Amino acid sequence: MGKKAVVLLSGGLDSATVLAISREEGFENHCLSFSYGQRHSVELVSAAKVAASLGAVEHRVVDIDLRAFGGSALTADIDVPKNNDGTFDGSNIPVTYVPARNIIFLSFALGMAEVIGAGDVFIGANAVDYSGYPDCRPEFIDAFAKMAAVGTKAGVEGRAVRFNAPIISLSKADIIRRGVRLGVDYSLTHSCYDPDSEGLSCGGCDSCLLRKKGFLDAGVPDPTRYV
Amino acid sequence: MGKKAVVLLSGGLDSATVLAISREEGFENHCLSFSYGQRHSVELVSAAKVAASLGAVEHRVVDIDLRAFGGSALTADIDVPKNNDGTFDGSNIPVTYVPARNIIFLSFALGMAEVIGAGDVFIGANAVDYSGYPDCRPEFIDAFAKMAAVGTKAGVEGRAVRFNAPIISLSKADIIRRGVRLGVDYSLTHSCYDPDSEGLSCGGCDSCLLRKKGFLDAGVPDPTRYV
Repeated sequence: MGKKAVVLLSGGLDSATVLAISREEGFENHCLSFSYGQRHSVELVSAAKVAASLGAVEHRVVDIDLRAFGGSALTADIDVPKNNDGTFDGSNIPVTYVPARNIIFLSFALGMAEVIGAGDVFIGANAVDYSGYPDCRPEFIDAFAKMAAVGTKAGVEGRAVRFNAPIISLSKADIIRRGVRLGVDYSLTHSCYDPDSEGLSCGGCDSCLLRKKGFLDAGVPDPTRYV
Repeated sequence: MGKKAVVLLSGGLDSATVLAISREEGFENHCLSFSYGQRHSVELVSAAKVAASLGAVEHRVVDIDLRAFGGSALTADIDVPKNNDGTFDGSNIPVTYVPARNIIFLSFALGMAEVIGAGDVFIGANAVDYSGYPDCRPEFIDAFAKMAAVGTKAGVEGRAVRFNAPIISLSKADIIRRGVRLGVDYSLTHSCYDPDSEGLSCGGCDSCLLRKKGFLDAGVPDPTRYV
């Protein structure tokens, strides 16, 4: 058995690649996903497939109780924006932003890491081809790690959990190229914010546009099933 | 209506006092408690009474899903230590430590603050008469606030949520004296980690010992019902 890592797995392209990277680095991977009423809950099915295909030793799915958020953007009937012009300069934070989402996810990952004795957490945050979320930036990951070091028993005892965001500075095309080299089967992954009832991707939301462009730029055939 | 605050309310003595302080400072208080399988879940009943008695405009109770933690100290059948010698020098972190608990609580409070438009979060963390938890120290609160400022939309837009820990440097006796001045009815609060089936306090756990000593030192009659 190798050293343990908690890997946050959304079922999307980025976190699947991160799991493959963690595996390549020799970690025994304990995957963690969340069910939080996302309209794209088909991604949890993808997460399970991805975890199995990349040899994770376990995959836990945790329910996030939304009562803290009232009727928030998580579940509110806000239309997912379509056919954005494809530029994501980070100057505007879109309506798909979920308050404190990555902070909550990382907090659970941190707690799980302490319980199972994992020294590392991996997250597929990406600050290049992203949608302008503040909690996807390197300075956020650094600040979270500093907070965790002072706020946990492991940290106080000199075994602070490390927070790894290995694709944070990669373009979507570079993420895909790296994943292909590591054997990621991207047909198992799901990115669309607004899939149809059969789980097919809409092809027009920010996440679909980024994904399409990534495969195109990488010169890799896009295995996604669009409506 | 005043400015809004999210107040983390455990049902215990400390957070009740913090709610009274927030009220005194003119905040419209939105209280948040958590149900996480604590063996002292009677404290949630106390939290509701405290919220009502101190004029909170709402009280939300959020379930924390424990699957991220496997069979952890949260629910594991570990005996609650009794009749500690009464000194809590912070050099040892006790078995009642719950991994990342305050980090998770503050993360939910932060998300709620963003959703309801609150600029302040209040927490009853205390670093004096405490039980050696790393996430009760001022440096932890500061690190959390810094992380929240870079990781949220509010922070990026220059409206970073403030994290207030107004009793962090007070002794238990001073907390009680302050609360009495602000009209806190401590008979509504619950501190014991290991109450009996009728909710009576054990009188011997760390939390009971601290509470007893606090009332004694403050010269205030202890309204707690012990077994």
